[in-house]
Amino acid sequence: MSRPGAAAAELRAALGDTNLLCDAGDLASYAADGRGARGTPAMVARPASTAEVAETLRIAFAHGLSVVPQGAATGLVAAGIAGDGEEQLLLSLDRLNAAPQIDAANRTAEVEAGVLLSTLNAAAEPHGLGFPIDLGADPSIGGMIAANTGGARFLRYGDVRRNLLGLELVTAESEPRTLTLGAPVWKDNSGLALKHLAVGSSGALGIVTRASLALSRLPAARISALISLLRAEAALPLLERMEAQFDTLLTAFEGISQAAIAAALGHVPRLRNPFPDGAPPYAVLVELSGGRCVAAEWLQERLTDILAPMLEDGVITDAAFDDGGDLWAIRHAVPEGLRASGKVMACDICLRRGDMMAFRAEMIARLTKSEPRLKLHDFGHIGDGGMHFNMVWPESSGAFDPDAAEAARAMILRAVTQEYGGSFSAEHGVGPANARWYAEFTSPEIRTLAGKVQDLLAPMPLGRVDFGMPQTRNAE
Amino acid sequence: MSRPGAAAAELRAALGDTNLLCDAGDLASYAADGRGARGTPAMVARPASTAEVAETLRIAFAHGLSVVPQGAATGLVAAGIAGDGEEQLLLSLDRLNAAPQIDAANRTAEVEAGVLLSTLNAAAEPHGLGFPIDLGADPSIGGMIAANTGGARFLRYGDVRRNLLGLELVTAESEPRTLTLGAPVWKDNSGLALKHLAVGSSGALGIVTRASLALSRLPAARISALISLLRAEAALPLLERMEAQFDTLLTAFEGISQAAIAAALGHVPRLRNPFPDGAPPYAVLVELSGGRCVAAEWLQERLTDILAPMLEDGVITDAAFDDGGDLWAIRHAVPEGLRASGKVMACDICLRRGDMMAFRAEMIARLTKSEPRLKLHDFGHIGDGGMHFNMVWPESSGAFDPDAAEAARAMILRAVTQEYGGSFSAEHGVGPANARWYAEFTSPEIRTLAGKVQDLLAPMPLGRVDFGMPQTRNAE
Repeated sequence: MSRPGAAAAELRAALGDTNLLCDAGDLASYAADGRGARGTPAMVARPASTAEVAETLRIAFAHGLSVVPQGAATGLVAAGIAGDGEEQLLLSLDRLNAAPQIDAANRTAEVEAGVLLSTLNAAAEPHGLGFPIDLGADPSIGGMIAANTGGARFLRYGDVRRNLLGLELVTAESEPRTLTLGAPVWKDNSGLALKHLAVGSSGALGIVTRASLALSRLPAARISALISLLRAEAALPLLERMEAQFDTLLTAFEGISQAAIAAALGHVPRLRNPFPDGAPPYAVLVELSGGRCVAAEWLQERLTDILAPMLEDGVITDAAFDDGGDLWAIRHAVPEGLRASGKVMACDICLRRGDMMAFRAEMIARLTKSEPRLKLHDFGHIGDGGMHFNMVWPESSGAFDPDAAEAARAMILRAVTQEYGGSFSAEHGVGPANARWYAEFTSPEIRTLAGKVQDLLAPMPLGRVDFGMPQTRNAE
Repeated sequence: MSRPGAAAAELRAALGDTNLLCDAGDLASYAADGRGARGTPAMVARPASTAEVAETLRIAFAHGLSVVPQGAATGLVAAGIAGDGEEQLLLSLDRLNAAPQIDAANRTAEVEAGVLLSTLNAAAEPHGLGFPIDLGADPSIGGMIAANTGGARFLRYGDVRRNLLGLELVTAESEPRTLTLGAPVWKDNSGLALKHLAVGSSGALGIVTRASLALSRLPAARISALISLLRAEAALPLLERMEAQFDTLLTAFEGISQAAIAAALGHVPRLRNPFPDGAPPYAVLVELSGGRCVAAEWLQERLTDILAPMLEDGVITDAAFDDGGDLWAIRHAVPEGLRASGKVMACDICLRRGDMMAFRAEMIARLTKSEPRLKLHDFGHIGDGGMHFNMVWPESSGAFDPDAAEAARAMILRAVTQEYGGSFSAEHGVGPANARWYAEFTSPEIRTLAGKVQDLLAPMPLGRVDFGMPQTRNAE
C-alpha cells in the first residue's frame, strides 16, 4: 500500500521544502511530453545530486510509490511522464545540471543528466567541438540516453549509444546503489557491457545521473541541398551515388514526401518554397560537411558533379542550395505542418534501405484500399533506413475515427515487422506509447529474458515500461 | 561428474563421426591462440549449423562437460582455448562458414560466425564495400564479436559493437535457446539492448552463430605518412591539427616509440627504413582516405599544409609518404619485432588522449627505477587513446624473471586504472589472461551484477571467464 503523505514528509526533509512539488499548478508543468501525452503524478521530486536521487528512490519505494524519471519532457513515447490515476512520484532531473566539463584533448564531456543538449553544445563550441546528435527538440542528456536518440545526422555520427563512453546509474532497488559503468576513454573492453542496458531503456532500468560523452569536431564547412525528384524511387540510386562520391562527408540524407513538404510549406508561413512549381513529387535534403581541408565552394562543385547528369536525365527536376538553415527549416517544420493538417498517426519505423521505396508503394496501395480517409505524409532519415511513416487524418475526411486510424497503424507496423523484418521503433524507444507493439512483436523468450534483466537492475517499480511478460514483475 | 565417453558417443551421432575430434593429433591444431597460450580440450566438436551448436551444448552440459567456443583462435587473451587438465569440450565454429550474404543497397552483410574477416571482405569488395575493422590477424566474425575488436581504424570506423546490427545467440542453458537479437536495419530501439551483452563477453554469455553487420564504403583514395617526431609529446598537438584539418578523412593515427620501430626495422628484414638517420625518436603513422570526391594528390597537398610548418619548426624531423602498404607493413611488423627482441610483457591499455604522453613519461621514470631490466617498447592507436604499452625483457637483461616482470606489469596497470582512470583492456577483452586484473579493478558491486547477468544468459559452464564474484556460479 502506498503512503504518499508519509513519503512527502521524508522527501521534504531530504531534498528541502521547495524541491518537492505537490501543488496542482506546480505539477502541471511536468505533466506533458513532446507529443502531448499527459499524466499527472502524485508529486514531483527535484533532487540536485546523485546521492539525492538515490535517497529519493529509497524513500519512494519504502512508501510504496512507483517512480518515473523525467528529463526535459521532449520524448515522443510518454516514457517520461507519470500515468494518470496511479501513485507515482515523478523524479525530475532538471536540477542535475552542473556546467559540463569539456576535455578538449580527449574530445569528451562529463555531463550531468539534467543538462540540456543546447547547454552541452554551448560549452563545447569554444573548443570547436559538439555533441553531434541532431534533432528538432532540446532534450536533456539523460533523456537522450533513455531514448538512444538518433536523429538526422545518424548517417555520419550514429546514435547516442555510439557516442556514450560511460555513465553513472542509480539502481531501482529498495536500497539503491550507484554504479559507475564505463569510463571517459574511447576503447574499453574490460568487462560486460552493462552500461548499454540503460541506453534506450525508456528510463526503466535505473536512473542515469551523469555521463561521459564523446564529442565530434564542429565542421569547418557545411552545405545543404534540397533536391526535387521526379519519383520517390530515384532517392535510393541518388543515395548510392552520394555515398560513393562523399563517403563520410555526407552527413544527412533526408527524404520528404510531396504531402509532407506541401503540409510544411502550406501551414508554416515563415518558410520560403525554393521550388517555383510547387511542392516536388519527392524531395531529398542532403548535407555535406567536413574539416578545414574542405571549403563550401569545393563541396558545392563536387555535389554538382553528381547532380548535373541526373538533372539532364530529368530524374532530378530542380535543386536549391544553401549553407545556412533555410532548407533545414523546411525539413524541421514538417511535423508542425502535419499537425496543422489534421490528426497525425505516427509510425517511427526502420527498414532495410533497399526496401524503403517498395514498402512505401505497397503501403500506399493498401492504405488507399483499406482506409482512404488517412493520407500518408511520410518523411525521415532515409539515408539510414529510418522513416517517419506518418499518416494524417484531415478534416476533409470527416470526424476522426480512432479505431479506424489505429487499425491502419497496426497494418503498417505489422507489415514493417512481419513482412519486411524492420523495426517498429527506430529512434523513439518503447515507452507506454509503443508497449502494445513491443508485446505483439517481441517473442515470449526475449521478453522473458528482458524482464529478468530488468528485475536484476530495477526490482522496484521504476519507469513506464515492463519489458517482461505480463505479471512477472513487482507482483507483490 | 563429467562423462566424456558418453558425451562423445552422443555427439558423434548428432554431428557425424568426422566432426568430433578426440585424437591428440587432431586436437593439437585447436590448442593455441594468437599469443601462444595453450590448452588441450578433451575433444573438439565442429557443428555446422545453429541447431547443431545448440545440440552440442545440450549434450555436453548433460554429461557434465564445460564448453569453450573457438573462432579462428587469433585472440590474445586465451578466451578461445580450453584450460588444460579440465573436462572441456572445445566447440569450434569453423564449419559455420556459409558464404556471406551482401545487401549492397543496405550496406549490410549476413554472416555466419565461423566466416573469416578476409572471406567477408572478399565477398563485399565487388560491391565497393568492406567490414572496416582493421587488424593484423584474420579472425572469425564470431571471435571479433566476442572480443569487440577495435584496431587501427577505430578513429574513423569504431569497433565491432558500432558495426553490429543484430546477432543470433545460442544460450548456455541445459536446454539451449536460440535468440535473434536485433535486425539488419540501422536504427532500432524496440527493446532492451540485449545483443550488446554478448559483444566483448569473451564468448562466455552464449555462442554467437550469425550476425548482421554494417559495411562501409571502400575508400576511393588512400594515402599514408610515417612522420618522425623530435619528441613523443609532439604527437598530441599533431593529432589535434590533423583532426581539425581532416575530421573523418583521418582514418588512422598510430604512434610507435623509438624502441618499437627499431625492433621492427632491426628484426624484420623485409622492411625498408624510410628514414636515413635511423629509427626516429617517436613515429606517427597517419592515414587519410575518402570517397571519389577526393584524390590521393589532393589529400597529399592538404596533408602537406599541416606538416610543412611543423617541419620548418623542427617538431617534425622527417616524413615518408605512400599510397600502398609499405608504411603500414612497418607498423604491423612491430609485434614481430618485439617478439624477436625478447620476452614481451603486453599491456593493452586506453587512456584519456591528453594523458597519454604524461603517463608514458611517468611510467618510463618508474620503470627505470623499479625494473630497469624491462625496456618499454610502446606503440598503438594513440588517436583513440589506445596504447599497446608493451615491455620487452631482452637477453641482455639476463634470465627472464617472471615474477619481476609481472610486478612491473601490475605497476603499469594499477597506474592506468587507479591513477589515470583508464582501461586495463582496451581491445582484447578479458579472457583468462586478464581475469586477474578484472578481479582486482572491478568493484564487487559491478562484479556481482555482471555475474547475475552471466547466470541469466549462461547458467551452464561456457567460456573461460567468470564475470561474477568467486564461487557464485555453477557451484553445484
